[in-house]
Amino acid sequence: MWCVRITVLAGGVGGSRFVRGVREECARRWPDGSGGTAASMTVVVNTGDDIWLSGVRLMPDFDSLLYSLAGVNDTERGWGRAGETERVSAELREWGVGWPWFTLGDLDLGTHLARTAWLREGLTPSQVGERLQLRWPLGVRLIPATDTEVDTHVRVADVEAAQEDGRSGLEHGAVAAPEAPREREMHFQEWWTRYRAALPALGFRQQNLADARPAPGVVEAIAEADVVLVAPSNPVVSIGTILGVPGILEALTAMPAPVVGVSPIIGGRVVRGMADACLAAIGVETSADGVGRHYGSRSQGGLLDAWLVDDADAAAAAALTAEGLPAASAPLWMHDLDTSAALAGAAIDLGLGSAARD
Amino acid sequence: MWCVRITVLAGGVGGSRFVRGVREECARRWPDGSGGTAASMTVVVNTGDDIWLSGVRLMPDFDSLLYSLAGVNDTERGWGRAGETERVSAELREWGVGWPWFTLGDLDLGTHLARTAWLREGLTPSQVGERLQLRWPLGVRLIPATDTEVDTHVRVADVEAAQEDGRSGLEHGAVAAPEAPREREMHFQEWWTRYRAALPALGFRQQNLADARPAPGVVEAIAEADVVLVAPSNPVVSIGTILGVPGILEALTAMPAPVVGVSPIIGGRVVRGMADACLAAIGVETSADGVGRHYGSRSQGGLLDAWLVDDADAAAAAALTAEGLPAASAPLWMHDLDTSAALAGAAIDLGLGSAARD
Repeated sequence: MWCVRITVLAGGVGGSRFVRGVREECARRWPDGSGGTAASMTVVVNTGDDIWLSGVRLMPDFDSLLYSLAGVNDTERGWGRAGETERVSAELREWGVGWPWFTLGDLDLGTHLARTAWLREGLTPSQVGERLQLRWPLGVRLIPATDTEVDTHVRVADVEAAQEDGRSGLEHGAVAAPEAPREREMHFQEWWTRYRAALPALGFRQQNLADARPAPGVVEAIAEADVVLVAPSNPVVSIGTILGVPGILEALTAMPAPVVGVSPIIGGRVVRGMADACLAAIGVETSADGVGRHYGSRSQGGLLDAWLVDDADAAAAAALTAEGLPAASAPLWMHDLDTSAALAGAAIDLGLGSAARD
Repeated sequence: MWCVRITVLAGGVGGSRFVRGVREECARRWPDGSGGTAASMTVVVNTGDDIWLSGVRLMPDFDSLLYSLAGVNDTERGWGRAGETERVSAELREWGVGWPWFTLGDLDLGTHLARTAWLREGLTPSQVGERLQLRWPLGVRLIPATDTEVDTHVRVADVEAAQEDGRSGLEHGAVAAPEAPREREMHFQEWWTRYRAALPALGFRQQNLADARPAPGVVEAIAEADVVLVAPSNPVVSIGTILGVPGILEALTAMPAPVVGVSPIIGGRVVRGMADACLAAIGVETSADGVGRHYGSRSQGGLLDAWLVDDADAAAAAALTAEGLPAASAPLWMHDLDTSAALAGAAIDLGLGSAARD
């Protein structure tokens, strides 16, 4: 039925641009004669930054992809709905409910309330996701990686508590005994949005991850794919969470089609977001080759059959290839739909080419 | 501490105008020297039209009183917040969530979300009510009549089902056997808002009412009052629900202070709302004396020590007085704060006067 089946692992904002590029490239390469594509595209979406906030369930990455593919996203701000307002959010601040530094747009809140109502009716997150996709014709199927709530928490040094200790020591004229620095844990959204990832992270913990199961359709979408693309999303909290769901990495390892990754790092800097703060926490260098090595070569027990880096990192690509991870370079900046589609095309070529080589 | 303690039983919109009048009258009559009043005012608020809608808890009467006393209500429309918008509501309609005919203002939704978040944290509705009253200085204490959810349901004839029966009979060429008209039950808000109370009601059922308990402070506010005023609110679904909470009528019967009711009917017509549809369902005539008799004279086992009707119903007042329910007349239309305060003053006079007569 489908001429080619492409499955993408993706986080939110960076993932959205990339998936739009994939959709556009497929429409150009395999047109269906009516403006769409004869290719089947499935996106396995990160759920690690999902959160219950004031009794309402937010799935930010899923919604970013939904809005972006529907064309109702705010392209200037880079996230949320176009034409957004924050009337309810301002009221919640007045009531002292929620997190004052966390902004909920009104249109976005409509999505969250619909989702929450359906969850409370007993639907699973992936069933809710199906309903949400009925509103706009996306041309791409989105599936949350798991129906288990794997909200990410971040372990940080409790600087304030340490300062408190110091102050109270001074006040009392005593010398504070040296002790292990205090730690505290906060939801990823607090770390990311409130502290802009500036508090050094000591580690990440996705709740329930060991007991999580892939959402219905995820393993099938991987097993039946002609190529799996790893979007240039956060390797730790986005792609890392997807791969951490028991069964997903196994499905990727078992299936015959190639896995092609796209580097989220260009010239030693993150393309967007604050992935460097996450990489540092797990001891991975913020570089195209550092992340490539982190994912690893499939031939050596890792994830990737091929790794795509920016032309600025061509030297890294050569080094990785020499190490056993086939890597190539292409322009990775997604300035617009054309450059996103070209990048998607390069990744698809790398995958189908490497498949042809098998 | 307080020079006089006034407790009001009230529903939403009509109750709000009346309570504003009470507050104004008390400030004039018993000024505290700093713009407020030395009188203590407590409002026991109807909770019968509360509803869970899409996982969010609405307490419309409580919020009407809150907004009105805070001066943030929409005076033109007569309900909700001033300067309201409906951005989220429009989204919920797009998602097919909730009731398309039920409009949730964005500012109002902020209140509902705050309430729901606090309820989910384990607070009771009356504790939530206390928190909500911290935002604006009301000068009046609002207590929901009960923390038990006594959402009202309305039993109506299922006209559509009956029509279905007729149609299917025709289609099949059969003569439908005469049978009892079908009935169905809907939430009060659906009957009131969607059908504008136009579907003939066969009866009202407040869920859990037999097991309900007065919220903390309600019985005390009644027992310690110098006068209890029954606002010109819906006698069936507003005042009727309050009185239906086991313990409240008992407290009113037991306490020594007078109970003064204000008629919601003027010249055979409801002042506002659709109370006539509710009165018809319980077999009470839509008239000032009909409602007065429904509440009954305390000396004859009923609720009221005195009943205040409009000057247009002076004849009814005379008749009721002759029957044993002391009734008086005054201008009942609350056009503005002055007329509302004058009405409140007349009710207070009737109560404190009758107390003096005791």
